[in-house]
Amino acid sequence: MNQAELKGKIAEAVKNAKSQKPLSPSITNFVTVNFVANAQLATGGSAAMVYMPDEGEFCAAVGNSFYINLGTIIPVYEETIPRTAKKLHELNKPWSLDVPGLGIGELRTKLVQQIKEYKPTIIRGNASEIIGIAKMWNLIDETTYSGGRGVDTADPVDSAKTAAAAIARYTGGAVAVSGPEDLVTDGKTIIRSKGGSHYMEKITGAGCSLGGVCAVYAAVSDPFTAAITATAAYNFAGSKAEKLAEGPASFQTVFLDALYNATPEEISSNPMTVEEL
Amino acid sequence: MNQAELKGKIAEAVKNAKSQKPLSPSITNFVTVNFVANAQLATGGSAAMVYMPDEGEFCAAVGNSFYINLGTIIPVYEETIPRTAKKLHELNKPWSLDVPGLGIGELRTKLVQQIKEYKPTIIRGNASEIIGIAKMWNLIDETTYSGGRGVDTADPVDSAKTAAAAIARYTGGAVAVSGPEDLVTDGKTIIRSKGGSHYMEKITGAGCSLGGVCAVYAAVSDPFTAAITATAAYNFAGSKAEKLAEGPASFQTVFLDALYNATPEEISSNPMTVEEL
Amino acid sequence: MNQAELKGKIAEAVKNAKSQKPLSPSITNFVTVNFVANAQLATGGSAAMVYMPDEGEFCAAVGNSFYINLGTIIPVYEETIPRTAKKLHELNKPWSLDVPGLGIGELRTKLVQQIKEYKPTIIRGNASEIIGIAKMWNLIDETTYSGGRGVDTADPVDSAKTAAAAIARYTGGAVAVSGPEDLVTDGKTIIRSKGGSHYMEKITGAGCSLGGVCAVYAAVSDPFTAAITATAAYNFAGSKAEKLAEGPASFQTVFLDALYNATPEEISSNPMTVEEL
Repeated sequence: MNQAELKGKIAEAVKNAKSQKPLSPSITNFVTVNFVANAQLATGGSAAMVYMPDEGEFCAAVGNSFYINLGTIIPVYEETIPRTAKKLHELNKPWSLDVPGLGIGELRTKLVQQIKEYKPTIIRGNASEIIGIAKMWNLIDETTYSGGRGVDTADPVDSAKTAAAAIARYTGGAVAVSGPEDLVTDGKTIIRSKGGSHYMEKITGAGCSLGGVCAVYAAVSDPFTAAITATAAYNFAGSKAEKLAEGPASFQTVFLDALYNATPEEISSNPMTVEEL
Repeated sequence: MNQAELKGKIAEAVKNAKSQKPLSPSITNFVTVNFVANAQLATGGSAAMVYMPDEGEFCAAVGNSFYINLGTIIPVYEETIPRTAKKLHELNKPWSLDVPGLGIGELRTKLVQQIKEYKPTIIRGNASEIIGIAKMWNLIDETTYSGGRGVDTADPVDSAKTAAAAIARYTGGAVAVSGPEDLVTDGKTIIRSKGGSHYMEKITGAGCSLGGVCAVYAAVSDPFTAAITATAAYNFAGSKAEKLAEGPASFQTVFLDALYNATPEEISSNPMTVEEL
Repeated sequence: MNQAELKGKIAEAVKNAKSQKPLSPSITNFVTVNFVANAQLATGGSAAMVYMPDEGEFCAAVGNSFYINLGTIIPVYEETIPRTAKKLHELNKPWSLDVPGLGIGELRTKLVQQIKEYKPTIIRGNASEIIGIAKMWNLIDETTYSGGRGVDTADPVDSAKTAAAAIARYTGGAVAVSGPEDLVTDGKTIIRSKGGSHYMEKITGAGCSLGGVCAVYAAVSDPFTAAITATAAYNFAGSKAEKLAEGPASFQTVFLDALYNATPEEISSNPMTVEEL
């Protein structure tokens, strides 16, 4: 894949999300649910958040894509998550998965294990989360990687390259690893996307809402393009917002405005590099 | 009702909410709960959000009004919603209802059906939600209207005029239909309120928080005046905020500031038309 | 304790939170959970919100401190709250407690009663909440105080002085009473902290997020210093933000920015008085 072709696909995805206004329902955590919805709306998508099992299945069926974020767990998820993931898989719907807090608690761990067979189209996380999923799903050698689980670890992105590629080859979709420089792969090609802002670590929800935006773009493009487009959009808007922000709270406001105002050309021109595996 | 009289009532409601600081507890969705609380506070009300059955009943009893928003459903609502609505009805408390996502899931549908007998004082929604409730409650001829259920439909407001009037005549309260131009009715008179902003569609919670503010004003005025006042306040603040916003996130900030700063005179002077049915 | 010594401890706590980035997980209410997380991040802490019993215990064990806020109750809390509080107590972890809505509902009341034996390191609340806890825990004479329970009462801070001191002597920790002027005590010394903003009453979550920030500082200092530092930081940032705000929503943005940008010197220099009991 060459950069020119990729840029064309990114611009197309941005344009299509704005014109088609896809519905991308979510089961997402309580901390950042508002941010996720507003980020989805900013990129042209429609949001609908649900928690009940039959509502997850219903939204999987009527939505153009879906977002599951396991950042907070409540008891009903024991039924809601596997039923929704199963339905998404059966219907071949594009969906993104985000697993903040991977490794905390029994139900959370069980859900991530169950999800394996439903092959999320896009998986997004920081390096330690991506490594954690690859281990939990036995896609990489347990001993290759050290640590990597928990709520607040910060592996360098590159350390998750092998894990990300292994997951992508297993799901047949894409994996996006967030960090100082972001990495997106479909198991064959590695895209590195630059930009963003140090403020993204100082607010809650930059990652979660990126997962929600991955789902929006996945409704109007292939998973790899969707993950790259969402990452580029976040890096472009983040860089722009950092210049105007006076702290993390104003950063979040300016960032969402920038995400809303970003043109297909601006997002597709955000700096990236392409590497074939 | 003439406009001068109505303006006086609106100004009075705005003034009374600020001076009396009524307590308007809510059972409301997780996505926009923070926005609802802040909007209620901005208009002078006090907020208290609950989820448990006995807490719903308790707050129904101690509150000056109440707000139920069924945008997100969790299992305990099976008990919480009917018990709270029953208590509100028994105590003759003013309360507003909002049903985002109407038609999704079994429990959600059952709850809306159960609520019928408790006659919400104010019902707020977009055209398709209002039509959906009128159908579900058998208040209009099922075949008169097409479609109208689901999470993201957008019937023109006027198409809900008959449905809104039918609901208002049934409950003896008011119905507010949100759209490019808003419509509020008590079944006898139709008020059309102008203003607002296109950004209200680009953020989550403009509708939910309007429902919460309806409850605040319902604590200090009759339901019809309350719904008109809340709608006028939102249209005034929305118009003002649009001029200052640089995107949806800054719009939300400026909007809430404008709502807080709006005077009784500014809100009561927001453009509207009156039509007798 | 003299002021110079105290100022040194405050500056030290602010500095240590920024450099050590302690993990302060929370079980906190749905209304203000995002604000809590962002305030914790602004002061240098890391946030992780959980709801399940085993996740509470896990986070109690791995966290450097913890925050429990009972503002909203869901059924699973029946198990989650006592198990988490027990674990925190057993492990001798610093943790802060906040009880908005004290007195509403059976489970909420039972949980506060159960928590007594686990002695929260810091308890934060408005005057009526602090008086309410002291009564519920039989630490003060029931007849000494009138009223004091419910969602929206507003006792003057000084009326809670005896109750706050009684609680602090019982827990061996600190109690922070929020009001126009804030009061913090360890049962021996009373610190009065000045500043803040009238806007803090016009937004939801000023108190909740202060409770979360108490937990952050409790991870890097003794409970009394932590409560004083958090209170001083809020008063400093609140005063600064009020000058720049044009309403409650812009206040919240400017406040969080100010909290993030506040230096150890600025926070430790915020006006306070010291009184020995």
